Amino acid sequence: MVKRTRYLRKMSLAEARTAFFSALDEVGFFQAAEEEIDVRAALGRVASRPVHARIPSPHFRSAAMDGIAVRSEDTLGARGDAPKFIPRENFEYIDTGDPLPEPYDAVVVIEQVNEVEGGVEIYEPAFPGKHVREVGEDFPQGAQVFPANRRLRPEAIAACLSTGNPTVWVKRKPKGLFIPTGSELIPPEADWGVGKVPETNSQLFRGYVEEWGGEAHVAPIVPDRLEEIRKAVLRALEEGYHFIAISAGTSKGREDFTAAIVAELGRVLVHGVGIAPGKPLLLGLIERTPVLGLPGYPVAAWVALVQFLKPMLERYLGCPAPPAPTVQGMLTHRIHSSLGTREFVRVRLEWRNEEVLVHPLPGGSSRLSTLTWADGIVEVPEGIEGYPKGAEVTVELLPR
Amino acid sequence: MVKRTRYLRKMSLAEARTAFFSALDEVGFFQAAEEEIDVRAALGRVASRPVHARIPSPHFRSAAMDGIAVRSEDTLGARGDAPKFIPRENFEYIDTGDPLPEPYDAVVVIEQVNEVEGGVEIYEPAFPGKHVREVGEDFPQGAQVFPANRRLRPEAIAACLSTGNPTVWVKRKPKGLFIPTGSELIPPEADWGVGKVPETNSQLFRGYVEEWGGEAHVAPIVPDRLEEIRKAVLRALEEGYHFIAISAGTSKGREDFTAAIVAELGRVLVHGVGIAPGKPLLLGLIERTPVLGLPGYPVAAWVALVQFLKPMLERYLGCPAPPAPTVQGMLTHRIHSSLGTREFVRVRLEWRNEEVLVHPLPGGSSRLSTLTWADGIVEVPEGIEGYPKGAEVTVELLPR
Repeated sequence: MVKRTRYLRKMSLAEARTAFFSALDEVGFFQAAEEEIDVRAALGRVASRPVHARIPSPHFRSAAMDGIAVRSEDTLGARGDAPKFIPRENFEYIDTGDPLPEPYDAVVVIEQVNEVEGGVEIYEPAFPGKHVREVGEDFPQGAQVFPANRRLRPEAIAACLSTGNPTVWVKRKPKGLFIPTGSELIPPEADWGVGKVPETNSQLFRGYVEEWGGEAHVAPIVPDRLEEIRKAVLRALEEGYHFIAISAGTSKGREDFTAAIVAELGRVLVHGVGIAPGKPLLLGLIERTPVLGLPGYPVAAWVALVQFLKPMLERYLGCPAPPAPTVQGMLTHRIHSSLGTREFVRVRLEWRNEEVLVHPLPGGSSRLSTLTWADGIVEVPEGIEGYPKGAEVTVELLPR
Repeated sequence: MVKRTRYLRKMSLAEARTAFFSALDEVGFFQAAEEEIDVRAALGRVASRPVHARIPSPHFRSAAMDGIAVRSEDTLGARGDAPKFIPRENFEYIDTGDPLPEPYDAVVVIEQVNEVEGGVEIYEPAFPGKHVREVGEDFPQGAQVFPANRRLRPEAIAACLSTGNPTVWVKRKPKGLFIPTGSELIPPEADWGVGKVPETNSQLFRGYVEEWGGEAHVAPIVPDRLEEIRKAVLRALEEGYHFIAISAGTSKGREDFTAAIVAELGRVLVHGVGIAPGKPLLLGLIERTPVLGLPGYPVAAWVALVQFLKPMLERYLGCPAPPAPTVQGMLTHRIHSSLGTREFVRVRLEWRNEEVLVHPLPGGSSRLSTLTWADGIVEVPEGIEGYPKGAEVTVELLPR
């Protein structure tokens, strides 16, 4: 039997965040490395430097409408009741987008041109630049096309290419490794006997890390032996991962190994956080590499990822996601929570007439179904013991 | 000079949508094909069939806490002031997650176990099933794990793997081809001379189609010759693309070719929509393949994609995105719009104290910068001529 877990003093969520992020700050973890890549491969990546127009866009004067290119001085005096004749040699037919030929400086739209013997008649004067797209009117040369610290969207990529920027500097994706530990774990494709548990928490890590802008890798399952886990961690450090998650399998005792290894190779910053699910979380640092000791129960692991790994990646990339949308609703059952613990309750929503009914999902942190079926989360702060049935609560919506 | 565009009767946005989607419905376009794939490769894909638990999760009885496995009948009568002795041969130490060995049916948590000579003392009776994870308590055998028509999120993938579903059926990604046309267009890596325009609208198509769940391909640039464009369209049809976008370059006259080709090979459903930007949009159908004739100006192309291609892909995949978040704010300048046109005005937002100021971005649909700098869109409906300065308007936020 494994030695029982001994927590450091359990910290509140806020204390744990401060302890973790300030230690990461001190070792320079948030100074993201950058790389220059083809802008066409940069969709969703975060710019590490602002992009400026090397070439103005547009880069030549052109017609903004189909019509005729004219010298504006030739159009002076044209009126509806006194059309002005322009001889054939003094204008050129032009399509939208065509370069404006010398010596013309304005365009008269085709609908206002009357073809007559030897030329055309027009009914209005055209000022210089009329219906002309000027050089740089979209992006002047040198103007900022895209700021740093924002994700490149499709229109930004088009804008970079339009201004002579075939490559951009982006933050390097932080690369994380998930190490599943537990002698009971098996790959889902293996044969499941009694006592064997398919390893699936890596899928949470992988999916969320990629959603949050990182690059996720999953190590082979490591049996419950301190030396084996230690070796896996040392290998991950050697291979240059930016962060490591050690997943504790489904048994509580296993976190001891993580704590022992992190304490030996680096520093344990947080062990035990006042959150439910997610209390057994361990946060540490080995040199510049954050190490998360994740609880084995899937919902606990999920809370730990959302509360710590998500803000960590956002700070690394310098690009926080907008807050999740919320709705107000009425609780259909009471929620109980412990004083000193921030509880994350999975709920389903039911829209009934004008009212939103909030149904808490029963079942503990071992039940992944409470997460797959949930529409949102109700957070119960540390200072209260829950909410009574009928209470008006705020629900943070989960992505669909 | 190219022949001038002749529009079909210009339709309103609502009429155009009805004409387009009902024609697509008639030819069975929305009956998406499905494919079976590894669930680990299914992140973000849309399930085409509900997933059920082939194996219950968990698939064996196990301890929910660290402690001792006992027969509940052996614990009857235990009290704080009258502990009950259980001899060593009548219990087993057990860790969270371990299978519950026969003949035990309950777990007493380790904190409530007092080790004494020859066995343990406990202080409370344990009912049958106490601290036991029952078979199927997360997902019973045969229960629905995931519904059809929803995108698979990380927890859904973990749930599928936990219930014996290593593969899932998903909607096949609709595959679209973007055909850039225009003799003035050049690949952005080529030399830009006067009159040469880098082709960048394909980046809008590619980025958005992928964001909306499709698979985007880009054809080589086709010069402005009817026969060449016709050949490119025929090739795309042969290659089995689910939808085709023909992009008109930057010149208006070019849409004639698209209209002529679609009319010859299939049906023009819509030509000219009462939207700005985006009016020159053409929508057609060649057998079962929708063809979009996109305006050449980038913001016009973007509006056309958002208003038609996005709902088309959502209906194909059966999985509409939630509506964009909105904010209310005060216009800092008047917006002018034509009667009968739905105008999509790009705006920047400024948070000043409690108030949100809404700044319309000047410049027409040729200016990509109005899109890259915009925080959101104000829609002006067809029946009004705009909004005065100071008006309270609703802003649909753009994704960041």
